[in-house]
Amino acid sequence: MAQVNPTVGSLAANAEKTLEWTEKALKAGADVVLFPELMITGYPPEDLVLKPAFVADNIACLKSLSKKIRGITAIVGFVDRKDAIYNAAALIHDGGVKDVYHKIYLPNYGVFDEERYFRPGSSALNFTLGGVTFGVGICEDIWFPDGPVRAQAAAGADVIVNLNASPYHAGKLVVREKMLRTRARTNDVVIAYNNMVGGQDELVFDGQGMVIDRSGKVVARGAPFAEELIVVDLKIGRKKPLKIIDGVRDVVLSPTLPSPARGEEIWNRSSRTAKKRALKIKEQRPINRHDEMLGALRLGTCDYVKKNGFKHAVVGLSGGIDSSLVAALAADALGGGNVTGVFMPSVFTSKESLEDAEALSKNLGIEFLTIPIRGVQEGYASALKPEFGGSHPGIAEENIQARIRGNILMSLSNKFGWLVLTTGNKSEMSVGYATLYGDMAGGFAVIKDVPKGLVYRLCARLNKRAGRRIIPKRVFTKAPTAELKFNQTDQDTLPPYDVLDAILKAYVEEDKSPGEIAALGFPLKTVRKVIRMVDGSEYKRRQAPPGIKISPRALGKDRRMPITNGYGK
Amino acid sequence: MAQVNPTVGSLAANAEKTLEWTEKALKAGADVVLFPELMITGYPPEDLVLKPAFVADNIACLKSLSKKIRGITAIVGFVDRKDAIYNAAALIHDGGVKDVYHKIYLPNYGVFDEERYFRPGSSALNFTLGGVTFGVGICEDIWFPDGPVRAQAAAGADVIVNLNASPYHAGKLVVREKMLRTRARTNDVVIAYNNMVGGQDELVFDGQGMVIDRSGKVVARGAPFAEELIVVDLKIGRKKPLKIIDGVRDVVLSPTLPSPARGEEIWNRSSRTAKKRALKIKEQRPINRHDEMLGALRLGTCDYVKKNGFKHAVVGLSGGIDSSLVAALAADALGGGNVTGVFMPSVFTSKESLEDAEALSKNLGIEFLTIPIRGVQEGYASALKPEFGGSHPGIAEENIQARIRGNILMSLSNKFGWLVLTTGNKSEMSVGYATLYGDMAGGFAVIKDVPKGLVYRLCARLNKRAGRRIIPKRVFTKAPTAELKFNQTDQDTLPPYDVLDAILKAYVEEDKSPGEIAALGFPLKTVRKVIRMVDGSEYKRRQAPPGIKISPRALGKDRRMPITNGYGK
Repeated sequence: MAQVNPTVGSLAANAEKTLEWTEKALKAGADVVLFPELMITGYPPEDLVLKPAFVADNIACLKSLSKKIRGITAIVGFVDRKDAIYNAAALIHDGGVKDVYHKIYLPNYGVFDEERYFRPGSSALNFTLGGVTFGVGICEDIWFPDGPVRAQAAAGADVIVNLNASPYHAGKLVVREKMLRTRARTNDVVIAYNNMVGGQDELVFDGQGMVIDRSGKVVARGAPFAEELIVVDLKIGRKKPLKIIDGVRDVVLSPTLPSPARGEEIWNRSSRTAKKRALKIKEQRPINRHDEMLGALRLGTCDYVKKNGFKHAVVGLSGGIDSSLVAALAADALGGGNVTGVFMPSVFTSKESLEDAEALSKNLGIEFLTIPIRGVQEGYASALKPEFGGSHPGIAEENIQARIRGNILMSLSNKFGWLVLTTGNKSEMSVGYATLYGDMAGGFAVIKDVPKGLVYRLCARLNKRAGRRIIPKRVFTKAPTAELKFNQTDQDTLPPYDVLDAILKAYVEEDKSPGEIAALGFPLKTVRKVIRMVDGSEYKRRQAPPGIKISPRALGKDRRMPITNGYGK
Repeated sequence: MAQVNPTVGSLAANAEKTLEWTEKALKAGADVVLFPELMITGYPPEDLVLKPAFVADNIACLKSLSKKIRGITAIVGFVDRKDAIYNAAALIHDGGVKDVYHKIYLPNYGVFDEERYFRPGSSALNFTLGGVTFGVGICEDIWFPDGPVRAQAAAGADVIVNLNASPYHAGKLVVREKMLRTRARTNDVVIAYNNMVGGQDELVFDGQGMVIDRSGKVVARGAPFAEELIVVDLKIGRKKPLKIIDGVRDVVLSPTLPSPARGEEIWNRSSRTAKKRALKIKEQRPINRHDEMLGALRLGTCDYVKKNGFKHAVVGLSGGIDSSLVAALAADALGGGNVTGVFMPSVFTSKESLEDAEALSKNLGIEFLTIPIRGVQEGYASALKPEFGGSHPGIAEENIQARIRGNILMSLSNKFGWLVLTTGNKSEMSVGYATLYGDMAGGFAVIKDVPKGLVYRLCARLNKRAGRRIIPKRVFTKAPTAELKFNQTDQDTLPPYDVLDAILKAYVEEDKSPGEIAALGFPLKTVRKVIRMVDGSEYKRRQAPPGIKISPRALGKDRRMPITNGYGK
């Protein structure tokens, strides 16, 4: 299984990567190599697939690739076009495409919109190579007990190969693994589940592919958040005679030699290498759940920055916990030398904030700039004086400060070509405790799906892993504040974060009603206030930068709420 | 047909509106009254329908409503829940729901995501009342020649009643009308096509319902962009005996009297009133295409502002054509007294710009403010001096000006509770010729789907309709400029707008490839440059406010492109 990282739209580069990893598999002595779902286009290609030229180009890349593949059977995801377009897998063998499978189950919920694009396939595909029968499937196909796997197994499949672009969220691995083990046991088949790796806008594909034997045991496991060739030797004992099953076609392939150019040497490698590798991989355990989240945030940030052509990121540092986490993740993803932290004090900024931001920057090895905003603030006050007259300073004046900071970061971005990373967490983004065009200004919202409580836990984990206080101790202990007026703390406006996070999880992720949430043990008045804040800030979220999904329901393509919305009012 | 304007999520208010218009229909002597698709929830309710409480509340509203309806048969759109949720129509008669139809064809393209939410229905519904058989359908159901209409007609339907929430785009009325006339003729049925009216975020429902006789002739027409009761007397001559058709159920209703409370008087009104009304409506002609677009922009703006609880809008005026159109539309939608225009000159601003902005404001009767930005600009220059050093002023410095203006408008919004309307047109939004958080800052982007050439034509039409130059002559004749540096014009950066608009239509709306666009008669180099600008500014559009769709493909839910995208690079 080639657990690789394609880029959406980079058709030629993705085909080239497919060839490169096919050759690695060939060298490792593999007979069959799997790629992820939609390997040629990347996932999700969204409305690109509505462009006829895009689909034609992806088919041309696949055809040209297939001519170069000999001596190994490769199964490669692409977009097929017949009477409609299909989410497809090409069976490449002996320099050509021998058959094409069309995904039957198309997900159209959560972050998925596959029914917008693709027609579902209507027949399953088995192929037989050297006496072993493989059933081909794509992602969602394997999630249904009554799906194609049952028919493929009945028709004699020994191994189900499943191509995936399965986005990460915390806890998903356990669900996947449980489902795959059940599917393998129930159908008496080996399952090779290969997943994409990489970041694409708000999604992160986590890899963590698996091979499960007939008994439901995981016999190999792909790395989390990294490209890897997962090589496994399978013992196949025929379980039952082949049957003819309606809707399952069987293609018989003859084993072929690699093209002379690659030579005997590769073909004749013993499978011992592969066995050794498989045994090694087998020992890889699922990782700590906080490390897994940090891995997702790191890869999501790294890929967004690099795949969009940036080399350097800039973060506004407040001395608080959110910007500390974002700066630490950026330094981890890009290297400290490619990150600039900017501290932008006003009259409301404390000395402690400066000290903490500076200490953090030093610990991370990132550039630290201080740009005071007081002069600009006075400029606005003077420009607006005729209109604001003697009005009491309030939200308008607070937001101006946040917007000055946003503008300064964007100016640095415009001048030096840096990407601005925003620092708002999921709790703030949910209730709209953030300034549109202010602290929400930037290209990528790294911790948009991380609730405040989890921000603290992830920071603690980073310090623990580093064996030192990268994020200064005081950042954990002081009261969270936006420092937009004197003696302000977040809790002037919001309930305590543990209460807020629990209410938000119930409302945003679980669609619970006010009554149901109150029944969990929160005052109905608080619940209603939080819900009002969430519903009333949809217009802000609509203009927020994308950020990395790590929860079952993130604030992005996952949750599509109307702005104009009278419900509950 | 009650062509009415519900609000998404306002379940109780929508049910109340249904009752109110049912009573109007009863008073007009109607036997049957149709409401739009999803009348109770509004359309599109998006992820609200994933909340179990929302669906339960909508069902409760429908049930309570049904008890109040007597003496007339009402067909009302709502979300039904059985084993799954359905886009449904309730057949309300004699104080109860007699049957429920589930929409069979679910649109899942363009702006539509119905397969994300609803399960498709599996059987068609006819009902017979006073010897006349009606076939019930919802929106998409009627667009397919092989859809339920054929079966319903074969089973004896005389009249097809079709509930719609069909969003406006220019030219759609002609397509709808042609389809409906064909459907009526082919199936030998009368068609009553009732459409929603109103704005919902980026969509505008245009009303313009129609009744078509068996010969395909339009016999009644609803007003564009306004609520209206469309009353039509139909002559029904039975065409053929009833047949039993698989998948079509028939409910027979007995005509009932209105509840005593409403009294004999209403029930006994002669149908002369209705006939007279029908004849009057019959004469209503489809309107001029520019007036139709202006109607959509006006209603979209008015409903966004009012349904979101605002009373007053603010627009940054530059003296150019785009802000002039937006200010004129806002004044038309909200009344001049509810609009403020803000002129924010810098050192690059010409005297002519001031004169034109001021003249426009006077003509529109809107408040006019001048807030110079020079002082704030100097504040930024001084704050950024240590970083920008002796670098040459460029995009960074230009964007600062746009962002200062954005901040000032947002400050006025925060201080006075005004909604900021942005002024970018579709040509600019497509190529990213706009400053994120600058001129893109605001709640609603009125002309986001209006290409630059059309902006001029709509302004000309406004002046012509008014019989005077509301928008000053010089605004039409001077070269478009962002005035962010000396002697700047849009054409320093962009191809001439007629060329740009044609390329954009081919690329953004028609998914043509560079080669295909060049073949229309444009230099390939220009085409490639424009495409690069479009693809490269996806990140800006993702953070843009919503705006009103008036074209077949707008820059919003209609066009879902990845930000990270290697295609064509």
